Amino acid sequence: MPIFDTILKPTLLLNEPVARHNLHLMASRARSANVSFRPHFKTHQSLEIGEWFHAEGVTTITVSSVDMAEYFASGGWTDILLAFPVNLRQITALDTLAARVRLGLLVESVETVNALAARLSHPLDIWLKIDTGTGRTGLSWQDVPTIQAVITATLASPALRLQGLLTHAGATYSASSPAQAAETHQLSTARLAALRQSLTASGAPPLLLSVGDTPGCSFLTDFSPANEIRPGNFIFYDTQQLRTSSCTWDQIAVALACPAVALHPERSEVVVYGGAIHLSKDYTEVDGIRQYGLVCLPRGDGWGQPLEGAYVARLSQEHGILHVPPPALARLRAGDLVFILPAHSCLTVQAMGAYVTLTGKKIEILRAQ
Amino acid sequence: MPIFDTILKPTLLLNEPVARHNLHLMASRARSANVSFRPHFKTHQSLEIGEWFHAEGVTTITVSSVDMAEYFASGGWTDILLAFPVNLRQITALDTLAARVRLGLLVESVETVNALAARLSHPLDIWLKIDTGTGRTGLSWQDVPTIQAVITATLASPALRLQGLLTHAGATYSASSPAQAAETHQLSTARLAALRQSLTASGAPPLLLSVGDTPGCSFLTDFSPANEIRPGNFIFYDTQQLRTSSCTWDQIAVALACPAVALHPERSEVVVYGGAIHLSKDYTEVDGIRQYGLVCLPRGDGWGQPLEGAYVARLSQEHGILHVPPPALARLRAGDLVFILPAHSCLTVQAMGAYVTLTGKKIEILRAQ
Repeated sequence: MPIFDTILKPTLLLNEPVARHNLHLMASRARSANVSFRPHFKTHQSLEIGEWFHAEGVTTITVSSVDMAEYFASGGWTDILLAFPVNLRQITALDTLAARVRLGLLVESVETVNALAARLSHPLDIWLKIDTGTGRTGLSWQDVPTIQAVITATLASPALRLQGLLTHAGATYSASSPAQAAETHQLSTARLAALRQSLTASGAPPLLLSVGDTPGCSFLTDFSPANEIRPGNFIFYDTQQLRTSSCTWDQIAVALACPAVALHPERSEVVVYGGAIHLSKDYTEVDGIRQYGLVCLPRGDGWGQPLEGAYVARLSQEHGILHVPPPALARLRAGDLVFILPAHSCLTVQAMGAYVTLTGKKIEILRAQ
Repeated sequence: MPIFDTILKPTLLLNEPVARHNLHLMASRARSANVSFRPHFKTHQSLEIGEWFHAEGVTTITVSSVDMAEYFASGGWTDILLAFPVNLRQITALDTLAARVRLGLLVESVETVNALAARLSHPLDIWLKIDTGTGRTGLSWQDVPTIQAVITATLASPALRLQGLLTHAGATYSASSPAQAAETHQLSTARLAALRQSLTASGAPPLLLSVGDTPGCSFLTDFSPANEIRPGNFIFYDTQQLRTSSCTWDQIAVALACPAVALHPERSEVVVYGGAIHLSKDYTEVDGIRQYGLVCLPRGDGWGQPLEGAYVARLSQEHGILHVPPPALARLRAGDLVFILPAHSCLTVQAMGAYVTLTGKKIEILRAQ
């Protein structure tokens, strides 16, 4: 039976060759740039997809929760960076994990470093989380005294192996052009490098620099002076990345297949079974209009180019309301499948909990919160 | 061990006495108003919580997916309305379900009615989904000719038992006052009643009226001429409902317990482990500021009143960034638990997949997408 005939309800489709190609491009880019590649696995969250990275020579990974670290450790990954501020309530689990794998943690206060030093019995890697302008979390790159105090506290504990400075140039995700994303990424790296220079001048030991954001890593070919890149989203991309031109539409490797359930030609709308619990409520804003995803129709064994002028206009729990211009809408019937390219693939993957490839293979993800 | 000491990561807490009290109030309100009560179970999605409804005398329920209908049928519920436009790709599952329980479906086109008539082998109830102004889906209440055609098609099939007209006054959720929510609800019901009058005058059989939105049902004591109410959110409420004054803060029965992981007093922000994958990205807008939830601190075995001036300002995958004014922030330490009252409890419940009550009992939900 053709794969689309087996789809009865919202289903996250994965175009495996496209995802593998995205991965190959990024791994090659890291090799050419002579920079370590530590991809973020929070996007795909799957041991099986992790094997595709193994096949590309990847041995070091990034995750964003203790559950994810335990999951990938159970799958044989031995060098894992947990890129989220240390949650002191999970120290016991971190210590257990540090006994099994080379574990890296992010710190951003003396208090947290001291708590780790007091309670860990297994050594692990420490990175200082530096805020180079994103304003989410981390020590301000300009706050050298506090950063020096965190370094001093780290060096005081034999269990804490100081690695370097880490940042995430999150502002690249809202860049309106490749040039702007590249500039934001480079400014972030330059601030990290300037900070390292101050610290070294004041007697700090050698510090590695770790950076990573999909837009920056998709545009640049030279990441110096960074030593490591940690992009994640590039494996699937999405319409946010399409918006910054980090990818082309045919590099988007996941789509939510949704049955059409009601047609409203009088207002150019189609209601699909596929809502906030499937796509998440992330969106891109285009000319002041929120787009929770783009709309494609079947083409061969996959999906075609996004329909001109069509987008996911609103979402409630299970309802997706698509704006579809009249010519395309006239060809749709209740029961037809439409394909939504998500605004933010990481959240859609987490919401769905599993993929079906275009050859019909089911791939599960971790999905612990 | 006190319950809060056992919480290591984002955990959805449920205050069972508060939820049971909300339920008792709504069930009593329906009884007093002499209207059928068919609560929407998509909010809690739990067989165990369903038993609390049984105890209040509830025998008829609403769900929003075939998976949910199958789940509650497996738990002994025998009268289930699937309040979502029929997904023709799931007709086989619907037919199987109709053999086990009294099943109600929503239709809004002759094509869908004809497809059901042609393919069902077990009889079921049919409701016409009417759009009384929300603009999500349904037949426009003013489009009497199409509605008559759908009724005619339904009456032509012995397997389809025409029940009546159903609407959802979704606009009440964005009302800025109880009076506005009540007015919106009443206008919606009045339009439904006017439609019934036109249809009856043209020879349609008797038609029941089914309405249901938590704000309207929380304010009104007289639902006539509606025959049935279908609220769902009221069991837990949330900050969207608090915003329309559908509830008081101490009626909100769920809160996401989140460990604080980083403090940024210089910008009055606290970073918690608890992000978009836990809360969902729904928000309320207050004076132009998005609030993805309100922030509470522990009080006794539960949580206290929302902190004055504090709210969830931003969310990424696992990060929650809280705005917390200085006096409260000064008392917080990394590792402390904070409690987030969600903007939209239905989506938070779905994202989390399980509750822990304040006495430490774990309650699972269905959680199929």
